Amino acid sequence: MADKIISERNLKFLLNEVFDAPSLLKFPRYSHHSPEVLDMVIDTAMKMGKDLLVPCFEEMDKNPPRFEAGAVKVHPSVKRLMKECGDGGWISAVASLEVGGQQLPFTVGLIPTFIFSAANYSASNYPGLNMGAAHLIESFGSQEQKDTYIPLLFSGAWQGTMALTEPQAGSSVGDITTTATLTDKGYYQIRGQKIFISAADHDCVENVVNLMLARIEGAPPGLKGISLFIVPKKRFGQGGALIPNDLTVMGIYHKMGYRGCPITQLSLGDNGDCRGWLVGEPNRGLSYMLQMMNEARLVVGMNAAAIASAAYYISLQYTKERPQGRPITSKDPSIPQIPIIEHADIKRMLLFQRAVIEGSLGLLFQCTVLTDLMLATEGEEREKYSLLLDLLTPVAKTYPAEMAIHSVSQALQCLGGYGYCDEFPIEQHYRDTRIHPIHEGTTGIQSLTLLGRNIVMKNGKAFILFLAEVDAAIAQAESRPELAHQALELKKAVERLKEVVGHLVGIATKGEIDLFLADATLFMEFFGVIAVAWQWLLQALAVQSALKKGASVSDEGFYTGKMYAFRFFFAYELPKIDGMARSLLSGDGLTLSMKPEFFDD
Amino acid sequence: MADKIISERNLKFLLNEVFDAPSLLKFPRYSHHSPEVLDMVIDTAMKMGKDLLVPCFEEMDKNPPRFEAGAVKVHPSVKRLMKECGDGGWISAVASLEVGGQQLPFTVGLIPTFIFSAANYSASNYPGLNMGAAHLIESFGSQEQKDTYIPLLFSGAWQGTMALTEPQAGSSVGDITTTATLTDKGYYQIRGQKIFISAADHDCVENVVNLMLARIEGAPPGLKGISLFIVPKKRFGQGGALIPNDLTVMGIYHKMGYRGCPITQLSLGDNGDCRGWLVGEPNRGLSYMLQMMNEARLVVGMNAAAIASAAYYISLQYTKERPQGRPITSKDPSIPQIPIIEHADIKRMLLFQRAVIEGSLGLLFQCTVLTDLMLATEGEEREKYSLLLDLLTPVAKTYPAEMAIHSVSQALQCLGGYGYCDEFPIEQHYRDTRIHPIHEGTTGIQSLTLLGRNIVMKNGKAFILFLAEVDAAIAQAESRPELAHQALELKKAVERLKEVVGHLVGIATKGEIDLFLADATLFMEFFGVIAVAWQWLLQALAVQSALKKGASVSDEGFYTGKMYAFRFFFAYELPKIDGMARSLLSGDGLTLSMKPEFFDD
Repeated sequence: MADKIISERNLKFLLNEVFDAPSLLKFPRYSHHSPEVLDMVIDTAMKMGKDLLVPCFEEMDKNPPRFEAGAVKVHPSVKRLMKECGDGGWISAVASLEVGGQQLPFTVGLIPTFIFSAANYSASNYPGLNMGAAHLIESFGSQEQKDTYIPLLFSGAWQGTMALTEPQAGSSVGDITTTATLTDKGYYQIRGQKIFISAADHDCVENVVNLMLARIEGAPPGLKGISLFIVPKKRFGQGGALIPNDLTVMGIYHKMGYRGCPITQLSLGDNGDCRGWLVGEPNRGLSYMLQMMNEARLVVGMNAAAIASAAYYISLQYTKERPQGRPITSKDPSIPQIPIIEHADIKRMLLFQRAVIEGSLGLLFQCTVLTDLMLATEGEEREKYSLLLDLLTPVAKTYPAEMAIHSVSQALQCLGGYGYCDEFPIEQHYRDTRIHPIHEGTTGIQSLTLLGRNIVMKNGKAFILFLAEVDAAIAQAESRPELAHQALELKKAVERLKEVVGHLVGIATKGEIDLFLADATLFMEFFGVIAVAWQWLLQALAVQSALKKGASVSDEGFYTGKMYAFRFFFAYELPKIDGMARSLLSGDGLTLSMKPEFFDD
Repeated sequence: MADKIISERNLKFLLNEVFDAPSLLKFPRYSHHSPEVLDMVIDTAMKMGKDLLVPCFEEMDKNPPRFEAGAVKVHPSVKRLMKECGDGGWISAVASLEVGGQQLPFTVGLIPTFIFSAANYSASNYPGLNMGAAHLIESFGSQEQKDTYIPLLFSGAWQGTMALTEPQAGSSVGDITTTATLTDKGYYQIRGQKIFISAADHDCVENVVNLMLARIEGAPPGLKGISLFIVPKKRFGQGGALIPNDLTVMGIYHKMGYRGCPITQLSLGDNGDCRGWLVGEPNRGLSYMLQMMNEARLVVGMNAAAIASAAYYISLQYTKERPQGRPITSKDPSIPQIPIIEHADIKRMLLFQRAVIEGSLGLLFQCTVLTDLMLATEGEEREKYSLLLDLLTPVAKTYPAEMAIHSVSQALQCLGGYGYCDEFPIEQHYRDTRIHPIHEGTTGIQSLTLLGRNIVMKNGKAFILFLAEVDAAIAQAESRPELAHQALELKKAVERLKEVVGHLVGIATKGEIDLFLADATLFMEFFGVIAVAWQWLLQALAVQSALKKGASVSDEGFYTGKMYAFRFFFAYELPKIDGMARSLLSGDGLTLSMKPEFFDD
């Protein structure tokens, strides 16, 4: 593992110089924090990441969870991790003061997520799941539920989970069949099966509390009949002792990566005594879960960018140290070899990684800032932030998730044969990051959400707001000679985007919904590149502002490198939209008319 | 594992209908074979693949080679594999009659390579390495060397290897330092270290013969001072008994994939008694090795296409069987779910895989046919085939190697969470195929070869020949209504290619070689897409010819599916060149002026 896993300088650049995160602290909701909190969070999380998470990163992969005698055993360091994340207040960071949280802006609260997952992605999930589960209870649970469960999740004594998927209901969550039958005691009897549930059993916590979707008997079919339940592994019996809740772990899945965290299969109510407690109102479970899913999607984007960052720093260190070959114009074999970072093709691979990672982070922090602004404002302003956040969330999940695969692959390529061997943990990052286009909604599902729902919702209001944001950045950049070229390129890209959206919406208006959505995934890719180009322009604007004010000598390298990564994105990534636009504008329903039997021969 | 790993129908389509491989058998070199040999090779290789290689595919991954007491133990099935490949004449298939081979066309001889690596990539390497090693000895060895080693390699009793890489000399092969000192007995004393040598030791053969690069004492520095040696693990002692040859296995590397075959680290001559026998003339080792490398590059392309094929058939079977979701225009939750192959996005992922796999195979068989024509002809004709082959070989390695990663990734995505788990071997294919852009010359090296050498060699003669081939296909397709649109698209693409080459060569002419080659890898990607589009047009032409003649009912599905995959390539892959051309035409040396220190902060 390289000593460095993320750039603290870049984090501070994004937070302070691009997004002015300290200004969030002026809102009453966050005003109990001082501006020092940002640096403090970064410093403490870095220390914990390096001291606690990095040392067991490879170990947790090589010694994945075991399923023995009906129970799951995980790496022992998870116990200390949960305790320290509890004691350090990491799990409760963004929760409200009312429930014992610290009510930090989401923007600040996600910094540890980024750092921890760069340090050890699998490990970072255990406390991360608690944040999500506690937040659901905080938002929709009863006072008793809050009092009972939230402190146990915040302290790390218990593990939280999200339990949605069933064997027959993955992407099609409306098809879940786990049932909940109301008893006269007020709780429900739960019966069914859940699969792919992260961390739903392990030996480093006292208990597990599953936030589970199930269908109350007699509920309407599909998405409208799903309710949310608290289904703990052990429940409180008489006198407050924990007793089994008839929840059986059937097994764990063996995965290519993300091996440090167990993914379990659960059977509920085999003996007719698995109790669940309804959260909020009946049949509203999906809308509740969507809140958690939206945050989870940003977390996934963060995880992907983090893994790519860790891999990038391994490749950076390696390419600086590995001598191989000579300058292309001086092949004299008697002179010493040069470090491979001197080769243009290696610099291309390194700049590509920066373009992806730093561009992704820009988009992600853009979304966390929108979340914070939404929570801190009212009325029309709030609606604006909310719409923009809705529009961008699937993109902020998908762009990093998909592009981190390419980014880590280029990191691996920088190491040649060594990258393919486990002497360096890049191959682990390569395996780990492949999960991200799958979980928390596949790329296909995110793309249908973006095009089929978000672009067109409220007559395109979110999309129009987005265009205004991009236009504002372009307007600012146009007048700066260093950025005018890229501002113009982005302007053309936006014209292309409007053309494509107009074309596709035209198809939808004619009622050809199948055709409208057939290339949704390609549209996602297209939109993602343009959204990240916008973020890169915002970053370049911040660099120019800093340089105008006069940067310190130590910062000059950083700003120069940043401008190179910015130029790289515009020179090598943005042009990719040309071909995508061509495909999107000429789509003739090829994939619709293709029949399954034509795949046979 | 799905029952199907490759399409035999497609193999026969390519061989018989696109490339008319049977006509190769009319050349005197191959005229001792009857046309039935094609079907026979396919049938027998399929049987062996399914009976012997598929059953141990996952096992070999889960039980990788072990290094114990200085020796390497591999999966026991390798022993049977080597014997059957020997007995069945697979190893000697393309070798000349003179050395006991069957003198089959390379086009036919590579079919088992494709089938075996689809069945079990790691396993396919053991006999594959013998083919390469024997061919080197056949081409450049003395009669005594041929008599001594070739039969042992052909029978599978011994293992052959290619031993190039050293710790300080990977891509920069001119920097090898392994030395060879001539003794008065006629052999050389070898001293040095080799790393990343596939199969250089294992317990399923009697002995290993390494075809090794080393530097004769006093040889010129760099590429011009490299010689080729036979360096066996055990050598013949007095009375013909095998005795150790002072070659020590230092260890094996633990790899992400390709785990069924050991990659070893060797130390040579620790006790001053490692004997090597010079192959051919001194200091010509690199040019000898390049012959083997060229074939090896086509084999790597074949391996990549094969792995992608095996993964594709898993995803095809899964998507036909997995019910999930409903038609986009009919979300009624009370109707049953549909198989996911009905969803447009799934068909997109399946068609993408076909576009990549079948397009890659087209390019690869194009290269094998060129190889066979070159070997069977003389003079100007031979030069034409040789130049075209030279030009296309790095592309036929790199396009499949790079695109198989994306293809397998899409196969994995089709299975969702299951694709990430080891219940299906797609995750193994995903890990296995990542080696291909690295070994036998990285993508970066192939790209420098394509642009820096092959495009410009002999005043662009190879490139001009290539353009003529593509133009001929376009001319044929233009007059067919079903193909006219794609013919026009390819015509425009070729114009773009000429524009880009003109632009880049213009830079080279000005002496700016650094800038000329800075985007060689992007040029490779650009060229690759166009070359594969040409192959797809050839395949579509063959389909139209077949349909004109009247296809059987059972073939109609195949031809229809083929046309969809063809249309898919032109609608979704070829347009990608737009952005690449834009980047290539506006390259301003960004990666050249980027300095290593700008990566710091």
